[in-house]
Amino acid sequence: MLDVCLLGTGGMMPLSYRWLTSLMMRYNGTSILIDCGEGTQIAMAKKGWSPKPIDIICFTHFHADHISGIVGMLLCMGNADRTEPVTMIGPRGLERVINSMRIIAPELPFELNFIEITELEQEFDFGDFRIRAFRANHNIMCYGYSLEIDRTGKFDVERAKALNIPVNMWGRLQNGEEIEYEGRYLTPDMVLGPDRKGIKLTYCTDSRPTDMIVKNAADSDLFICEGMYGEPGMEKKARENKHMTFYEAADMAKRANVKELWLTHYSPSLNYPKEYENAAREIFPNTHTCKDGRTKEINFEE
Amino acid sequence: MLDVCLLGTGGMMPLSYRWLTSLMMRYNGTSILIDCGEGTQIAMAKKGWSPKPIDIICFTHFHADHISGIVGMLLCMGNADRTEPVTMIGPRGLERVINSMRIIAPELPFELNFIEITELEQEFDFGDFRIRAFRANHNIMCYGYSLEIDRTGKFDVERAKALNIPVNMWGRLQNGEEIEYEGRYLTPDMVLGPDRKGIKLTYCTDSRPTDMIVKNAADSDLFICEGMYGEPGMEKKARENKHMTFYEAADMAKRANVKELWLTHYSPSLNYPKEYENAAREIFPNTHTCKDGRTKEINFEE
Repeated sequence: MLDVCLLGTGGMMPLSYRWLTSLMMRYNGTSILIDCGEGTQIAMAKKGWSPKPIDIICFTHFHADHISGIVGMLLCMGNADRTEPVTMIGPRGLERVINSMRIIAPELPFELNFIEITELEQEFDFGDFRIRAFRANHNIMCYGYSLEIDRTGKFDVERAKALNIPVNMWGRLQNGEEIEYEGRYLTPDMVLGPDRKGIKLTYCTDSRPTDMIVKNAADSDLFICEGMYGEPGMEKKARENKHMTFYEAADMAKRANVKELWLTHYSPSLNYPKEYENAAREIFPNTHTCKDGRTKEINFEE
Repeated sequence: MLDVCLLGTGGMMPLSYRWLTSLMMRYNGTSILIDCGEGTQIAMAKKGWSPKPIDIICFTHFHADHISGIVGMLLCMGNADRTEPVTMIGPRGLERVINSMRIIAPELPFELNFIEITELEQEFDFGDFRIRAFRANHNIMCYGYSLEIDRTGKFDVERAKALNIPVNMWGRLQNGEEIEYEGRYLTPDMVLGPDRKGIKLTYCTDSRPTDMIVKNAADSDLFICEGMYGEPGMEKKARENKHMTFYEAADMAKRANVKELWLTHYSPSLNYPKEYENAAREIFPNTHTCKDGRTKEINFEE
């Protein structure tokens, strides 16, 4: 099960009633954060999710509304007694930017490992899951991210029995281990059916719509995408500021054949995103405008 | 009239129900901010005070809970169309620290002027008012600040008439101007009585109690002082962490002969500061524990 929380839904600046856009995910004891603007640690505390298990922090880009809260977040993780290293993923320059900001927090009780994205599309393997970064189209270097959790095939008890594999090895094979046993070489494919559908989530802000986003969001269970503007007539402004409208996001969701679309990163001038939800649903029916703290559990299909 | 708002009252980290300690003052069209931790711009928006007229920002020290919100604040001032320069006052290293943090906001529509404090006590004149920095005793270089607004003597109409000073010069003399007129040299002291009591506010966090603080807070209309701990038995922890208890702050208020004491910068573990208010009042009766957004207008005495 992947536990997802959109901690904030604002763009540009935090408002008294709307935190800046940030996504937190929990899977199998690991937490992953995407973006961390001013106040994200408070939004997280409000939600009641712990900062301690955050193993990975991804940054879309270095505009302040996506990164200005990182120093407070790191200190907050330190206060929560984290000692394990934290991995940060982001555009080129990440290490320099973070270290420059850390002038007010030079000492932390854990190490930081930096992964700077160098390709247009790049995949990072974390064992249980993979994170894929893909280039967006904003006015500075910016990336979207897909998180994918694979699921192996179903364990075939009859085959395992027929092959005389001892029961105490079933679990190890199911977990992907290869075993040498009494001269035999046992591999998972001997007892597992074909791979089953995993879980896929895609997150993209800030960007104009692009084919690259559509391609990377393909077949996602959840697509979280910026919808800076919902009001009619904002297409020109969206183009100029390298952002997108609800309708451009909904069109990408449709083309990418995702299951569900969450809109976020609202302009401070957009007080009631829900007003324009139905208009976006005419393009992609399962579109949702979001409030801070929106949560969803994504389970493997039965 | 000096308009004072304690935007936040927390220490160490922002909580979901308590902003970090920051003081905003408005006087005669100018706003002054002391400290700016993560979320201060949101606390300000909640209060409804504008970031645009902030001409001066003072920093007590460079711990993150006192400065981590400055980049967001500067961007917020830019969004409010500020173009006039902003003066920053703080410990040595101020310019380097701010510029390092500004890696995510390199361009602003206004200039920054930096004043780094080099003495144990140092006064800065801003025309209508003076800001005096004085060294505190924390685990890094830290300063408290006094703001003083002078008040000239009462205009003596009878004397002005007796001296045959034309009525159209009264206002200029009252405002401190010296005038040459028909061979005479007119000075304010010819028509003004003795200086009257002005307004004085003193702000100090984070520090152990010191004589330097008492001396600089002397006779303040309002003394805003850290009270990190209120619970009994926290004296040792206060000494170790270079902070102070409610009772140490109240004792300084008494010795400094201030009119009113506000406690702030509460430890995240201190949920209900008001519980210990009466105990502090036994030392200094006009002590107040504060909630975020506490406001007061300080007027010249009639």
